[in-house]
Amino acid sequence: MSTPIRDEVNAANTAYAADFGDKGRLALPPVRGFAILTCMDARLDPARYAGLAEGDAHVIRNAGGRASDDAIRSLVISHKLLGTREWFVIHHTDCGMELFDGPTISTLLETSRATASFDGKVWTNTQDEGGSKEGWHTAWLTFTDLAQSVRDDVQRIRSHPLTPDAIPVHGFIYDVKTGRLIPVD
Amino acid sequence: MSTPIRDEVNAANTAYAADFGDKGRLALPPVRGFAILTCMDARLDPARYAGLAEGDAHVIRNAGGRASDDAIRSLVISHKLLGTREWFVIHHTDCGMELFDGPTISTLLETSRATASFDGKVWTNTQDEGGSKEGWHTAWLTFTDLAQSVRDDVQRIRSHPLTPDAIPVHGFIYDVKTGRLIPVD
Repeated sequence: MSTPIRDEVNAANTAYAADFGDKGRLALPPVRGFAILTCMDARLDPARYAGLAEGDAHVIRNAGGRASDDAIRSLVISHKLLGTREWFVIHHTDCGMELFDGPTISTLLETSRATASFDGKVWTNTQDEGGSKEGWHTAWLTFTDLAQSVRDDVQRIRSHPLTPDAIPVHGFIYDVKTGRLIPVD
Repeated sequence: MSTPIRDEVNAANTAYAADFGDKGRLALPPVRGFAILTCMDARLDPARYAGLAEGDAHVIRNAGGRASDDAIRSLVISHKLLGTREWFVIHHTDCGMELFDGPTISTLLETSRATASFDGKVWTNTQDEGGSKEGWHTAWLTFTDLAQSVRDDVQRIRSHPLTPDAIPVHGFIYDVKTGRLIPVD
């Protein structure tokens, strides 16, 4: 399906590929041996804010930069199959997952189905963050305390049985007003 | 914890922030109103290969660029809360999720626990792609047919009850040897 956006992406890609240089020789494992988990937010460009060239590091992104099971799946693959040995968790100021709480999402989703069943699981409009195990997958993973959300996700990753103890997991907040990374201890 | 990699990231970030310009004025919703789901692979830089400036579009990334529940959570938030109205699914050649099959992952993980229990769910070393519903979350989401993996994920997203019918979902393969996007119909 042709759309103006698709045409723009294709045109930008044609220009990128025309100046691709020797990047086609890069191998699969990340050259610099690390991975970043961060938010999908449009203002964040992890390659630019963390200084990554193509080939350097894995970048995992979702709404909030949360340590979901899928993010942990990706980190485990990143280490076990592709050799990364250091990980970063980077959330950011003015994040939608902090601004929109459960009730807000519920209201916004009311024009969709209130509760959707898909693939044997229930997707609810209500936040179920601290609730049942079942809720983890279908929760929207909003948070109310930014620094704590980083600590929680670092801790969730560290405590996972497939995370080796030797891997440093660094927590940061990216400030969308300044472009700066602020460490979270 | 200070490490050489952390110091490098901090130094690169300091340089980025020093030349931040007026990017601090960008608002939360993506300026160009679309989202890209792609792989965490280090060789892929979606901002560069698709021509994104900071603020333009959501970027969601995991191992394989798969339409996991967490990726769909992110896409739903991207549309419902932040107004994107067009989505791209972009897998790539030479992907680890195609090269490493279930048995390979099993072998590589044997130095870890064969089966890890975490947060009430079982993380197994074996591939369970087409298996039980339970398996979706803990499966490694490898695939054997690259173009079909794109079609499958586009279809999974399109068929989700929280995906509006009006949203175009474009499927592409990124060629790591040339930097080019190849449409998958």
